Amino acid sequence: MHSLPRLSLVGAGPGDPELITLKAIKTLQTADVVLYDALANEALLEYAPQHALLIFTGKRAGNHHHTQDEINEKIVHYAFLYGHVVRLKGGDPYVFGRGGEELEYAASFGIPTQYIPGISSALSVPGLNGIPLTKRGINESFWVVTGVLKDKTLSSDLLLAAKSSATVVVLMGMQKLTEIIALFQQHRSGNEPVSIIQNGSKPNERSVTGFLNNIMELQQQAQTGAPAVIIIGKVVAEKRFARKGCLKQHLLHTVTSPGVSDIL
Amino acid sequence: MHSLPRLSLVGAGPGDPELITLKAIKTLQTADVVLYDALANEALLEYAPQHALLIFTGKRAGNHHHTQDEINEKIVHYAFLYGHVVRLKGGDPYVFGRGGEELEYAASFGIPTQYIPGISSALSVPGLNGIPLTKRGINESFWVVTGVLKDKTLSSDLLLAAKSSATVVVLMGMQKLTEIIALFQQHRSGNEPVSIIQNGSKPNERSVTGFLNNIMELQQQAQTGAPAVIIIGKVVAEKRFARKGCLKQHLLHTVTSPGVSDIL
Repeated sequence: MHSLPRLSLVGAGPGDPELITLKAIKTLQTADVVLYDALANEALLEYAPQHALLIFTGKRAGNHHHTQDEINEKIVHYAFLYGHVVRLKGGDPYVFGRGGEELEYAASFGIPTQYIPGISSALSVPGLNGIPLTKRGINESFWVVTGVLKDKTLSSDLLLAAKSSATVVVLMGMQKLTEIIALFQQHRSGNEPVSIIQNGSKPNERSVTGFLNNIMELQQQAQTGAPAVIIIGKVVAEKRFARKGCLKQHLLHTVTSPGVSDIL
Repeated sequence: MHSLPRLSLVGAGPGDPELITLKAIKTLQTADVVLYDALANEALLEYAPQHALLIFTGKRAGNHHHTQDEINEKIVHYAFLYGHVVRLKGGDPYVFGRGGEELEYAASFGIPTQYIPGISSALSVPGLNGIPLTKRGINESFWVVTGVLKDKTLSSDLLLAAKSSATVVVLMGMQKLTEIIALFQQHRSGNEPVSIIQNGSKPNERSVTGFLNNIMELQQQAQTGAPAVIIIGKVVAEKRFARKGCLKQHLLHTVTSPGVSDIL
């Protein structure tokens, strides 16, 4: 029995295995091959049929790191060989996920493609930490920016974002954190709150919250690492309010390691 | 049997009832009361237990329209009266959803709250139409803006967004479409592609795609209405590519009414 070649780009959500859609689960259930990246929770592989090939494409000690070209080729190779390839990606496949490139490459071979959206960490991780990305009268828009470009330089969009009044969410920004905070300090008040959340929605979530003018100091103590979501904007102060709730979502879900200062 | 008062803010996703998370379904299954808005698919109410009270809070002919204050009070009232109130909101509760206000009000009465993220139409509706919000070398960030503020004026963030190089996604912008397009025409090339997608991910989805310099003309023919997602940015041109795929997600899912011009 050989099923027809096709590719499904599937969003795995931010990490919590229950933050995946019903449609994504149903799609995984018909997979012949699952190519999954480091940000997709491996618990989700349980939804794939027994016969499905499960292939890890992320970076890991002792593991060959796949380049984007290699992943593209694997998708096409496995689609023709086995049929339905599910490309399971952390968050949403189109939010800095290179999903478009994979879809384009597969389609150039005539392989049918579909996209199943996922819960992006850019939106959900702040919310799960009591930070609404928008709030009437406080922040009326949000801007999601990548920390680094293909050529490893800082995105020029970051300067514009710093100048704007939007809530800014930076993904993949930890390597450039010092430069990013310095840029925002030049264009926004030092009292603008900032939160850095690592492994959002996972049991090993850690976070540090402060202001533009002290976050680097706090981060030096906290040593929050990648993968992390950086949120800069007045709505971050809402986190303080959230603390007052009797049952706080992030208290249920997170383990904050000792030494992490959370000043708000 | 009376359960303890609590509030769950739950994202219902963009419209397709399969684009809801497992966590949202499990939360609905323990609801005593569901307060749902016009953008939440009513099919999702099936997940609520038989005993649950189902209350519509949106605008509808012959139906009393609830103000935000009335909704806040209903949440608190029902939580103390019946226990677990699920506030089911289209998309994600924190993306212009006033979720923060409802949570804050409930928490001020000591009611425990939690947030369950949803698939935002801002991210998923473009993707389901073959438009990746980001693509390396084309658009490295995206900015989500509301079309209208509390006082019905145009958001000042829109001017900054127009000046930026980001992919801009406007929600609730149809009433101000003429002004929004005019603003972007002043700051971006007339050849910048634009797509307007109504009822994204639903069977009655309709869309119109063009450029800044002709979208108003095309829209006059197409009469795409609210609720709609407006996407402005170079990545919209990727939609053209997606057309070449053998199996196109939006061809499977959408019904485009006659007369709708889709020029890309």
